[in-house]
Parts: sequence; C-alpha cells; structure tokens
Amino acid sequence: MPSTALTFPDRAAHRAWLASQAALPRGFRVGATRFAFVPVETPKPAKMTITLIALERPTESFAAMFTRNAFPGAPILIGRQRLAEPTLGAVVVNNKISNVCAPGGVATAERVCAAAAAALGLSPRQVLPSSTGVIGWQLPAEAMLAQVPAATTALQSASILPAAEGIVTTDLYPKIRRADLAGGSIVGIAKGAGMIEPNLATMLVYVLTDLDIPRDELRAALAEAVEGSFNGMSIDSDTSTSDTVVALSSRQVPCPDRTAFRAALNRVCADLAEDVVRNGEGVHHVLRVRVHGAPDAALARAVGKSVVNSPLFQCAVCGNDPNVGRLVAAIGKLVGVVRPGLDLSRARLTMGGHVLYQDGAFRLDPAKEQALVAHLRGAELYASVAPADGLTFAPPIDFPPHERAVEIDIDLGCGEAGSTVLGADRSHEYISENADYRS
Amino acid sequence: MPSTALTFPDRAAHRAWLASQAALPRGFRVGATRFAFVPVETPKPAKMTITLIALERPTESFAAMFTRNAFPGAPILIGRQRLAEPTLGAVVVNNKISNVCAPGGVATAERVCAAAAAALGLSPRQVLPSSTGVIGWQLPAEAMLAQVPAATTALQSASILPAAEGIVTTDLYPKIRRADLAGGSIVGIAKGAGMIEPNLATMLVYVLTDLDIPRDELRAALAEAVEGSFNGMSIDSDTSTSDTVVALSSRQVPCPDRTAFRAALNRVCADLAEDVVRNGEGVHHVLRVRVHGAPDAALARAVGKSVVNSPLFQCAVCGNDPNVGRLVAAIGKLVGVVRPGLDLSRARLTMGGHVLYQDGAFRLDPAKEQALVAHLRGAELYASVAPADGLTFAPPIDFPPHERAVEIDIDLGCGEAGSTVLGADRSHEYISENADYRS
Repeated sequence: MPSTALTFPDRAAHRAWLASQAALPRGFRVGATRFAFVPVETPKPAKMTITLIALERPTESFAAMFTRNAFPGAPILIGRQRLAEPTLGAVVVNNKISNVCAPGGVATAERVCAAAAAALGLSPRQVLPSSTGVIGWQLPAEAMLAQVPAATTALQSASILPAAEGIVTTDLYPKIRRADLAGGSIVGIAKGAGMIEPNLATMLVYVLTDLDIPRDELRAALAEAVEGSFNGMSIDSDTSTSDTVVALSSRQVPCPDRTAFRAALNRVCADLAEDVVRNGEGVHHVLRVRVHGAPDAALARAVGKSVVNSPLFQCAVCGNDPNVGRLVAAIGKLVGVVRPGLDLSRARLTMGGHVLYQDGAFRLDPAKEQALVAHLRGAELYASVAPADGLTFAPPIDFPPHERAVEIDIDLGCGEAGSTVLGADRSHEYISENADYRS
Repeated sequence: MPSTALTFPDRAAHRAWLASQAALPRGFRVGATRFAFVPVETPKPAKMTITLIALERPTESFAAMFTRNAFPGAPILIGRQRLAEPTLGAVVVNNKISNVCAPGGVATAERVCAAAAAALGLSPRQVLPSSTGVIGWQLPAEAMLAQVPAATTALQSASILPAAEGIVTTDLYPKIRRADLAGGSIVGIAKGAGMIEPNLATMLVYVLTDLDIPRDELRAALAEAVEGSFNGMSIDSDTSTSDTVVALSSRQVPCPDRTAFRAALNRVCADLAEDVVRNGEGVHHVLRVRVHGAPDAALARAVGKSVVNSPLFQCAVCGNDPNVGRLVAAIGKLVGVVRPGLDLSRARLTMGGHVLYQDGAFRLDPAKEQALVAHLRGAELYASVAPADGLTFAPPIDFPPHERAVEIDIDLGCGEAGSTVLGADRSHEYISENADYRS
C-alpha cells in the first residue's frame, strides 16, 4: 500500500490534502495556460494546456528515462539528446496531442522549445519538451508559440498544483507526492490513466528536488526508483509512445544522507505509481499482486503482470466476483509459454489472506466465497452508475475515497525471488472512455 | 475472410444454413442431455449438458492437441495419456465446469469416462473426456453418472447439431463448418467465446471425418491446420486451461488425395477459428491483421497479436473511432520489447485499403478519417443497446449478420515473412458477460 494509507470522505478533503503536499522545492517555478485550437486532422475544436516547469538557474543535475516503445514520440527523440547537454533549465509540457510520428514532429517540438527558451532567457537545448495525448496528430505550432508568453507570465514559486493540473488528459484528479528531508524536499507529479504499462518509465512524471544530488547519482537513483515503481504497474498493458520520467535537482539544499535521499525518492515514485493506477481509466479496484517463491525476479514480475493484465480476471474483480479460476489460468498461461515444465506443485495462492489454492488443488467453499466477496467489496473505489444515455459510463467520483487494494499473494513455491505488481480491474467506464477518446 | 463470405439477414437464415452443414460423416453418432445440479462451491443451482461423440467402431486414427497453460485441466492430463492408446471410441464432453485443479478432478473424469464406456460397450481408456466452464469447481460426479444413459439414448447419426449446441457456454450460436470431398466429408464444431488466445489449440474443437487417413498423417495434418488457424487468433489474450482440438477419422471412405484432404482440413479449421472470433464475447468487430515484410513469421504473428490484444485499440474499434495512433503504439510496444533496434523506417500501414502511415509519419486528414469511419461501420456486427437495468449489456443478436472484418495491413518493411492474426474489439457486452460470469 502507499506510504500514507489515506482515506478521503469527499472531493474537498482530497483537494485540501493535495494542496498540503504542493509546496515547491526551492529553486523552481511552474506555470500553465489553457487554450482552444483546431487540429489539422479533424475540424472539431480541441483544448490544450501548456505547462512550464522552470529552474531559477539551469542545473547540471537532471535525469530522464523514456519509453522503449519502438515508435517513440518526437519529444522522446529530442529528450534522449538533451541527456548529453551540460545543463537543463526548463521543461515545456503539452497535453491533448502527443506528437508521435507526426509529419515534422521534431521540428515543431524544437520550435516550441526555442520559444520557451527565449521567454526564459535560456538556450533552446536547455529546454526539454514533453507531449501527451492523441498519437499521430500534429502539434498546433502557431497556437502554441502564441501561448508561451501566457504560460511564462503564470510562473510562480509557491505551488506545484498548477503543473499537476496542467499535464493531465483523462486523469480524474491531479497526483502529487512529496517527501521532506534534511531541510529540503522531493516533490513529484504524474499524469497517466490509460496506455499504462510502462517499459522503463511511465507516462509523464516530473520529480523536483532542491536537495543537492550530482547528476550521475541522480540518474542512478531515478533508475532504481523507476524499476521499483512505474515498471511494476499496468492499467491496460499498453506501453505508451511517450512515457517519460524526469528528475530535476536545483541543488539548493545540501544532502548529507544519500541513502535517505534514495529511500525518499523510491517512496515518492512508488506512491505516484500507485496514484496512477488508482486513478486509471475506469478503475474500480486496485490490484496488488505480491509474487514470491519464484526462481528469478523477472519471472515473478511477469507472473504478476499476467494476472493484472488478464481481461477475464479484471472483469471478474470489477464485478466483485471472486472467480479465482481465472487467476490460476492467468498464471498458467504465462508460465506455460515462458517456463514450460516449471514445477508448480508447491504453489499457494491467497486473496485478502484467504487460501484459494494449495497442494495442487483449489480450496473453495461457500463460506470462503462470501469472505472473498467481502474483501473485493472493501477494496472497491466506486460502483458503476447507470448512464443517462444508456451507453456512456462516467466515474461518479473524481477523488480516491481510500487507498485499499485487492491483495493477492502468489507463492510459486519454486525459488527465492519475488516482485510486486500493481494493476487494476476492467470496467464499463474504461470502455466508454476509450471507445471515442478523441471526441 | 472465411471461405464462404456469407451474410445472414436474420437468425432463421443462419440456423437454416447451420442445418445445411450438419450432416455427420459416416461412422459417427452424437447425442446430448441437459440437467440441473448444485455445485459444491456455491448453493446456487446450475445447468450442465453432457455431449457424447461416438464412433460406430473404435478408430486407430485419432489426433488431439491441448493447451500449453501450465495449470491444465484434468481432461487435458487424461487426454495426453489417451494419445498413446491404440484406439479411441468416443468423446464425452461437459460444459459449465472445466474440472481444472479441482480436488479429485482426474478421478472424477475417469469415472465419467468409465460410465460412458460401459454404456457404449468400450473400455474406459477408449473414451476421451473434455470439460469447459468455471475453473476450480468440482464436477458433480453423481449427477453426471446418472445422466450418461440419457445422453446415450439420444445418440443419432444424422446431424452434428446437437453436439454443436451441447458443448457451448457463453457462445451466442453453435459453430459448424464442413468440407465435402472424394465422396466423404470433414465436419468440425467449435465452442469458445472468451479466454481465447490458444497456445497450440483452442477451447473445444471436434473435427470428424469419414475419410481414411492413418493416425500419423492425421496428427501431422491437424498440427498444420491448428497452427494456421486457432493459433493465429485472440479474443482476449487469455489462454484457457482447457483448450482442446480433437480430430477423429472413422476411415469409412478411401482418401486418394492427401493434399486435398489437408487443404480441406485447413479450411475447416480456419473457418471455425473465424467463427469463434466472430462469436466472441461482446465482439462488435472482427479484426483481421495481415502482417508482412517481417524478418520472421514469429515476429509477424507477435505484432499481429499485440495489435488485436491492445485494449485501447480494441475500444477505439468498438466505438468506430479510427484512433490509428493506438495501432502504431501497439506495434511499437511489442517491437520495442522483443526486437529493439529493428529498422521500422520503411513500415507502411493501411486500414480498409487506406494508407495510414508511411515514410516515418502518419498520413491523416479529415477525408481519410471519414473513409476509415465508414470502413469500421461496414464491419460492425451490431451496436450496443442500452440495457434495461442500465448496467447489464447483452448482444441484441444471436447470429452473425455478415462475415466482414476490419482489414488491417501492416508492412514492417524489413523482411519477407508474414502472418495473419484474427482478433476482436472490446465492448460493454464483454464487461457485462465477465463481471459476473458464474452467476
């Protein structure tokens, strides 16, 4: 579970908590502006937000990890080059269009970087671009260039909330996590609710700190944190073309305890990852699958991913239906492909602490069925509400009422390695959200 | 597309066509019986059908392929042993409970085989068991044994339809395909609508022929046919614990042309595979993804599977929304993992014959968007109907109105190999079907 295990009785309580987490580390300013435009590909008007994350002084200490999708977006291609630059001074983010494989995509992203650089007194190569949204469409270059001054004017150094709100697409609420240590802080924000099974990074995540960590250490710490957080989750098994995690240090506060820094960064990233899953498109239940007793960690993670990405198991959980046969089927389909012949005779499965399977057979009866249903209901974030038009489902809440999850424990019984994977169920709200996402 | 490319104006037309395909090959009898029982695991009553497929005389010429899921059902464990038997005389099939990892599952299945054998004058090892349905529950042994005589009494040699109807679970309609050649015939039936991404076989498929093919040739022909049909499809990426394909020859008709036999068997299996996808749970659109220009056939198939199993692309197709960026994302997520660095700069994608992507960028405009929407609408089997309770969607038809598909062509531009994959979209009906399947 997240480091907090919070509950929120209503939206106002959640927003108040977000505000309490939002103080920016020293040395940063953020600002955002929202505007309307008409995409090249469709006559239907759309809206976009440009968000600026700026350092008071460019920093040598920056880190970034990007998607491994073989069709990366233009900002990913540029971002990989930026990693070799001596310093970074700002990040410019847009939502609505992800600038992936679009004609002239790299040139347009560079123009936006140049405009932001001019407004902030930087060189264009000190600006990292990020984009998220529809794949394939072209950025509205002229409209974006015209809006950069407004985003610059909005810059302030008090709260990260405008950035957390500015980068979202289908997210129901902004996501902020922080750790305070040694007189400084680490503050992270994330967007992402669909196309989430990151492969070395997640959608868009920005982690800001004023603690003074040299570039190489920051990059190593970020890689460790990402591996233990975003790489262990999936909402819908779809790896984005735009996944990006950025960490920036303004280096304004000495950091005597690097171990504590890494632990805090790990925690911020793990909490953000769970926030992303909990706020995933149509998510009614978070699934936490602890796999252990595996011959190696890679297989443990793959087993966990197979469970959380099983459409049938996802649907069963959505219906609070403990159809645990599908859990076994999802484990078996993965092991049958990647490790045929593995001895699973000592495997043992539990859900909510109740033993489902051991010694080669299921252990089910009506009383256990009732206990499993109770566990599922206890982890439910909301139930579907019949839509007014009969077809278009929308979540009835835009805050997370609790941080509970469906707790699944899988002991493969054939080794010492383990991994924990976060995932989600599959609902009518996901279908409605994605059957006509671009409208 | 299937070898027929039929359209059916209504249910009666479809049922009449099924009846026209249903004549049994010489030397076979089928019968089925349906009854109520109370599962061990829940007090809620359920219904089961027992189906018998019997040869007039036991045959040496039988073939079977089974799931590679690492938690196979008891009938799979028994079936693998039966492959070494000198002859087979009957198959006994039940639906509702799949007898997977259930306490005492193998012993119960053997008791059912023994009862069927006694009724048919066979030895128990001449009977192959098959089960499909809920995973983990126990077969109702006493109720099943009591019903075997009724199934035996129902045996007849005119039509395979009672078996095609007897083996279904969530299927909307029975599936029968036939080929007539050399004075004999090949007739196949299939069940399966969910948990469909077979790995060396699909749910339950039985192919009967009177053409005289020796065992070894039949087994080789079946392996070839399965690889080109059931192994190239996915409804929901979930590989069943019970996948089984059986082929039986009564050897009553000489078969001079083995090449023609293999071609006919391939066609029957390919048509049944497409029937299974078209009748998949909640399927509004069949997706046919032709991948070519690949360095090898395995990568081509994996790319096709990645596309048809992408939840986001599936939802977009369901909404007749040509969100083709998700198509590229699904290709890229797979290639980025299994073949990073592969040169995709010459990749070219089309949908319904319209070029979406070539020379490294999308080729989209409002006119093409309209054409793509028209292609999607033309391939739609049905649209969702708002449910009376606001939540529980059900397909408004129980027949396939046409055999059209969303036609996607992916030229990876980096080789000579190819593969065609069949898949389906993702809809509210799938969610409703699977959120409380066992009720």
